[in-house]
Parts: sequence; structure tokens; C-alpha cells
Amino acid sequence: MKVAVLGYGTIGSGVVEVLKNNAALITAQAGEDISVKYVLDLREFPGDPVEEILVHDVNTILDDPEIELVVETMGGTGAAYKFVKAALEAGKHAATSNKALVAKYGSELLDIARKHGTNFQFEASVGGGIPIIRAMYTSMLGNNILGINGILNGTTNFMLTKMDRENRDYDDVLKEAQALGYAERDPSADVEGFDTCRKIAILASIATGKFVDFEDVPTRGITDIAKEDMEAAKALGYSIKLLGTFKKDGEKVYASVTPALVDPSSALYPVSDVFNAVLVDGDMSSELMFYGSGAGKLPTASAVVADVIEITKNKDHTVFAGWGFEKQELSDASSEEKCFFVRTESDAFITEKMTEKAVRARYSDAAQIIPVA
Amino acid sequence: MKVAVLGYGTIGSGVVEVLKNNAALITAQAGEDISVKYVLDLREFPGDPVEEILVHDVNTILDDPEIELVVETMGGTGAAYKFVKAALEAGKHAATSNKALVAKYGSELLDIARKHGTNFQFEASVGGGIPIIRAMYTSMLGNNILGINGILNGTTNFMLTKMDRENRDYDDVLKEAQALGYAERDPSADVEGFDTCRKIAILASIATGKFVDFEDVPTRGITDIAKEDMEAAKALGYSIKLLGTFKKDGEKVYASVTPALVDPSSALYPVSDVFNAVLVDGDMSSELMFYGSGAGKLPTASAVVADVIEITKNKDHTVFAGWGFEKQELSDASSEEKCFFVRTESDAFITEKMTEKAVRARYSDAAQIIPVA
Repeated sequence: MKVAVLGYGTIGSGVVEVLKNNAALITAQAGEDISVKYVLDLREFPGDPVEEILVHDVNTILDDPEIELVVETMGGTGAAYKFVKAALEAGKHAATSNKALVAKYGSELLDIARKHGTNFQFEASVGGGIPIIRAMYTSMLGNNILGINGILNGTTNFMLTKMDRENRDYDDVLKEAQALGYAERDPSADVEGFDTCRKIAILASIATGKFVDFEDVPTRGITDIAKEDMEAAKALGYSIKLLGTFKKDGEKVYASVTPALVDPSSALYPVSDVFNAVLVDGDMSSELMFYGSGAGKLPTASAVVADVIEITKNKDHTVFAGWGFEKQELSDASSEEKCFFVRTESDAFITEKMTEKAVRARYSDAAQIIPVA
Repeated sequence: MKVAVLGYGTIGSGVVEVLKNNAALITAQAGEDISVKYVLDLREFPGDPVEEILVHDVNTILDDPEIELVVETMGGTGAAYKFVKAALEAGKHAATSNKALVAKYGSELLDIARKHGTNFQFEASVGGGIPIIRAMYTSMLGNNILGINGILNGTTNFMLTKMDRENRDYDDVLKEAQALGYAERDPSADVEGFDTCRKIAILASIATGKFVDFEDVPTRGITDIAKEDMEAAKALGYSIKLLGTFKKDGEKVYASVTPALVDPSSALYPVSDVFNAVLVDGDMSSELMFYGSGAGKLPTASAVVADVIEITKNKDHTVFAGWGFEKQELSDASSEEKCFFVRTESDAFITEKMTEKAVRARYSDAAQIIPVA
């Protein structure tokens, strides 16, 4: 199996490294050698062994019939989309770590792959090194997925953990996250929940088998979480986490991104720092949790390599996975009844179950209102 | 796909139930209908719909060419072994929830299946509903497994949780576990660690690709854990859990079952009550944890059904999984350097790293010595 890696950044170089480091094992598992024939990048890497296989023109890859699989680790939805689509249309398989690409164009790319009897896989797009996607479509076979609660963004989990444990305020921990390289200079993709939104949309699409549009998912980040909220939640026995959630309730399907109070009996409660975890509720399996590094060069690359091996083992047919074009309509999350944490100037408490509309009407002067998971 | 279920106890009846409840979903995932044609049991079940397909003679199943897959949920290594072996030799696939069978005869049964191009699978044999086996051979592809730490027995975890939280002693919590049906009247399989031993031997065999004989795994249960140990461990900031452990250190391979002190930074620390969790360290993925119900009718049956679906999808070839006949020699666990918890009559503390021999020699009058995980 000859592979081309599109983009030699952190994850792309990690993929090259994992395939090289564990070559013997990977050959045994895949049933044949897997080698990287090309790496596409606009940059030069003088002195790096990748120089010998570096190309700058994607057509070198697309036109080479020896290349059966492209690995896309460029990010974004511009060139990444164009190149992956072209590769799939040329009858090649594709694997990607790019959540934005999968959330936006997953239905189309999965469809092209199916029509060609090839595979489009994206294990690393959600939860970094945590094998959550493969768990849902192989290990939880036979289950209707009734719910998902995921800590899917390491940066915000790191920040909330710091706020919780060290009684620090949002701006202060954001600066630390930026200094450590966990948060970007413009942190909005993380702190506004946009990253989590794309990830929960992908998981919800797998759970329902239909396209859950990330643009339909109500998304609230952590920017308004104050030190006082964290302290009051803690005093009530809870921790605040940013969750991507999916819930199936009869015909109703909900998805949302929101900070939420998590109680100590939940397996998500102790998940701290940059770790990710996904709690999946199957109608037969009950709740399962998958936990690990949500980011990092080798863990994420390792998830991509698992796709590469699975594709190699199944290169003559499309593995059952993903979803179709049919759109999954979402019910209005604000009409779902939940308990809420309410902090007023003088008090903080947990309400009975009610809708978000009702709680906002009843406590219109509250300083903070956050659902309880 | 026509299936026969051997044994209509808790798990066997659960398998019939899951296949029936989620039939439409399962057909979609498997690519064809899966129906239970026979259930084998020596007992009668008057009034149960299973009556119509109940048989008492295994030859009805073995001789029926329509049966492509047998599901063994009888337990033990007597008839279960004989029947599964005969089914595999007749060219049928097999799936089992029976850890004793897999730990003892796995190499042979896997070999027969490979020779016939069929599959022998056993997801439910470890961790009940937690898809740990499939995670290791599909989701962690490309990784060398360097370590495993698992809470693999719900009964003992329940007992240790009770001792920890309620400051109760061993005999007292054992009685409660028996009253709740979590522990047998003869609780030795659980409390002596024999159950955990078979499970870690299976996981270690998958991790190494060689046969790890459960009889080689040094096994210590929880029967000598006193209330005083739990209290002293807690005062030092730890919790005591019964762990099945596997570790690869260069050429050395260790496996053991032992109560161990787990510190709060470990993902295993909060795993309580009857839950199971397995922490797996891959050289590329870093640590991943898989958490869920370690037992229970439907969760365990759901893991069996995942095997049934995977086998149906791959009925024309053997899926890469399992291990060979070659035996994995284990290094002497007592020569591995670790930190230990030592409780004397007047004191309790954690030692520096040393071998078990050294700690037992140095503190020969200690009331308790337990390794730190």
C-alpha cells in the first residue's frame, strides 16, 4: 500500500513517524507493507528525510495510480476539501484528521467513497488519540446510541480545571493556556465552543446515521464562566465542564454544546487538564466511557494510522461506517427539561427540571444560568 | 445468518433479547438478517418463546449446515470446550463470553478457526460490556501495547469501594455483596483474584500476540485487605483497587493480579462500585481508558452481539485478532522494582522503588505490604 500524506505539519509528520517507527507491527496487522511515497507541502524542509519524497503539486499524487490512499492532515475546508474530493473521485481511499472537513463535507465525501467502493475515514477528527469513532461503529454494533456526553476540547478543559482547582479567573487561565501553547492567540475556536460543536456534530451523525449539521447545533462556550460560578458550583458539589451532548428521546433528537455542571457520580467528573473523554449510552451496552489524550502529535497520528491500517485491510470494499445525505433535524434544545444551576447576587442553587426558557424567565436577573448534565 | 446459542442462562437469554430488540439495526449493520435458529439447554423453559427453538442435543446444531455461527454462553471448560471445538471443526464460526474457555483453550480454538478461514471471537469474556478486546485489535492498530492496568472484576471493586467509603471491614462488605447477588456463596473466584487472572491473561495474550498462560500469572486477591489498610492508604491519599496488570519493559514481560494503591491522578482512581475500567498504554496513543459495566445481562450480551455482527460481516475470512501457540514467558514479577505501601503496627508509609523481595525482607514484621500502581 502506497500512501501520500497531504500536509507535513504536526499531525502529518506524526503519521510519517508512526508508520516508520512501528513498520514491522503495522505490516503484520495490515497484511502488507504500508509506505509513504509522497508528502505534499508548500514548504521546504531542508535536512529532513522527508525532502526525498516531498512534492508541491497535488497532481503528482492524484495522477499516480500507485497511490491508493491519501492522508489529509492540512486542516481547513479549502484545499483540503478539493484534494480529498479529487482523490476519492480518482478512486483512491482517504483518511483525515480534519474535523472541519468532516463536519462540513462528510456526507458528500462518504458518498463518493461508497460509489467507488473505497473508504473515507476520520478517527482522529474527534477526540485525538481516543478511538471513539471506531468504538461507535465496530465495538458498539447492535446498540442504538441514546446519548453522548463528551469533553471534546482539551484547551477549555485545561482552563476549567485550572479555574476549579486554583480558584483563578477566566482571563488569567486563558493567558496561561496561551503561554503553554494550548490556546491560540485568537482562542475563539476553543473557548466559544466551535471546535466542540464540529466534533459533537460528527459523533451525532454517526449515532443517527444521518447528517447532523454543525450549524444547527446550539453552541455556547466558556467565555462567561466566572470564578464565582466555579466556586458556587463546587460548593454545591459539582464541577463545570464544557460538554458536547447528543440525546435521543423517542423521535426527538437533541445536540448542543454548553458548559454544564457535572456531579461526582459521573465518569466525566474526574476528567481534567487537557484530557478528553466521551461517555456513550447504548441501549444495550449502558454507559461506556472512552478516555485519553485529546490532542498531541503521536496520539492523534496513531488514530490516523489506525484508519490507514483498516483501509489497507479492507481496500477492496467500503467498510460500514459514517452516515448518508439525509439530514437529521434537531429538536429545540431550549424546550428540553433539565435542572439548572442558577447564581444570583446573593445565592446559588440547582432548580427542578424545567425548560431553559422557563428558567431564564423565572430568574431573569440571575448572574449565571448553566444546565446540569 | 443463522445462529445457535449454547446455554440459555443470563447472557444467552440476553443475546437472544438483543438480537430480537434491535433486529432492524443489526440487519443494517451486518448487511443481512441474523436469526437464532436454535437455543441449546438441558433445561426446559415452559411458556418462554424460546421453547419453539429449544434443543437438547448439540448434534442438531453441529449437523445443521444452515448454522454458520455458534454463540457459547454456557461457561466452564467442559462441554463448552467440546461444543465450541466441534463447531469450529465443522467449519462454523464461534463467539463466546466465557473467559475460562478463552484463557485455557484460546490458542487452540483460534488456530482451528484460522485453519478453516472462520472466526473465534470473545469480546464479552473481558470487561463485560466494555469493548476492550476490539479496541485493542482494531482501534489501537499501529500501537505496541506497553502496559495494561485493569479493574476487571466488579464484585471486588464493589467491596473495596464499600470498605473505602464506609470504613467497613472485609467480612461485612462480603456479606453485603453476597446479599446483593454480586458475590457467590463461595466467593473465591472473585476475591482470590482468579477471575481477574484469566482476564488479564487474555488481554496480555492479545497485547503480545503470544499465549500468556493464566497459570503463570502471580495472583493475589483481596482477602487480606483490612479496614486498617484502607484507612491508612486513604490517609496517604490513595485508594486500594484490585488490578490485573501487564507491562512490557524491553524484553521483559510482566503480568500479575494484585491489590494496589492507586493515586488520584490515575484515571482508575474514581472507578468505583461494580464498574470495570481498563487503562491501556500504547507506544503511540499514550494512555487510553475504556470504562463501563463489567457485568450485567444486556451489556455483556451486547458485547457478544458485536462479535456476532462482526463475524457476519466477515464470514468469508478470518479477521486479524487473537494470538498464536507460541508461549509468552513472563518475567518474575517479584524482581520488578516498584514503590510499596507498608503498614506496621504503628505506622504506614510508601517506600522508594525496590523489589518485592527487598521490601518483604526489610519489613518482615509488617502487617501489610501492597504495591503502588
